Amino acid sequence: MKFCSRCGEPVSQRIPEGDTKPRYVCDVCERIHYQNPRIIAGCLPIHEDKVLLCKRAINPRSGMWTIPAGFMENNESISQGALRETSEEANANAEIIDLYTVFSLPHISQVYMFFRARLTDLNFSAGDETVETRLFDEAEIPWNELAFPVITQTLEYYFKDRKTDSFPVRTLDIIYESRQP
Amino acid sequence: MKFCSRCGEPVSQRIPEGDTKPRYVCDVCERIHYQNPRIIAGCLPIHEDKVLLCKRAINPRSGMWTIPAGFMENNESISQGALRETSEEANANAEIIDLYTVFSLPHISQVYMFFRARLTDLNFSAGDETVETRLFDEAEIPWNELAFPVITQTLEYYFKDRKTDSFPVRTLDIIYESRQP
Repeated sequence: MKFCSRCGEPVSQRIPEGDTKPRYVCDVCERIHYQNPRIIAGCLPIHEDKVLLCKRAINPRSGMWTIPAGFMENNESISQGALRETSEEANANAEIIDLYTVFSLPHISQVYMFFRARLTDLNFSAGDETVETRLFDEAEIPWNELAFPVITQTLEYYFKDRKTDSFPVRTLDIIYESRQP
Repeated sequence: MKFCSRCGEPVSQRIPEGDTKPRYVCDVCERIHYQNPRIIAGCLPIHEDKVLLCKRAINPRSGMWTIPAGFMENNESISQGALRETSEEANANAEIIDLYTVFSLPHISQVYMFFRARLTDLNFSAGDETVETRLFDEAEIPWNELAFPVITQTLEYYFKDRKTDSFPVRTLDIIYESRQP
């Protein structure tokens, strides 16, 4: 960020009065431009003993498998965002069962929130950002071709919890420590 | 938003190619400026049969009671944000028990995430944005002086769930329909 989105003049990083953290502040109109984490909302779409995965058509991780998910938009709820992404990425019709996994990734200022969802029919297909959609049972999951650690973790929780048919919300902070070489 | 934060030139609202929603796009450098919901993270601090509330010193809802909560910052996890706000607003030392309530408020593009937390000592006091901090048992809760519906709802869930000592994560979308006069 170099310029104020309100008045177009340059911004500088400084700690505003009464604050504790550096913010981008307009040199002229003094508007403070806060930056906050973003939410990625998604569904784990379920049909009988199988889950629906999407093979990504875009980077990052093009060609790897994921569950339908994407940035939550303004003026929607988390579950509405999750269902919208399920529709956009997999052309799938689903209904929310419940919130299931919540991940914080502070190094990239992202929060992932995934819901268990029930496919209401089998008319799914690849959306614009997907090359293939497919139902997988547990034995078929392509563990070495999953796109992101949060996907692997959600699937591990799911197949473990399914044994007891109990699906408490799972929260996890994924902290990458910076290491000295 | 009127100007591009990257190059300082004017932005216009239009639907970028491959997108479905209007975004602020720079007329000159074509940077797309996405806007996304923000997370408010907080704690319900618990000591024995009491909960800690804060009387707000600032607007909105100055003089009303709340639990310690505020905007999640970049480079922190949700629980870290909740504990930071508990420290800032109530000078309270607490440890997270578990995620408890998750509210979507799409009309203001906000997501509230509150954790049950245990006070580790009783050295709490009013922070800069608070005029008073106090422990309340269920009979003392100032139900008519609570600052926000999400606070009322969280306390209602808590005292109900405490009867069975079972605290599943509660998710709720709070939808305000716009009404014709």
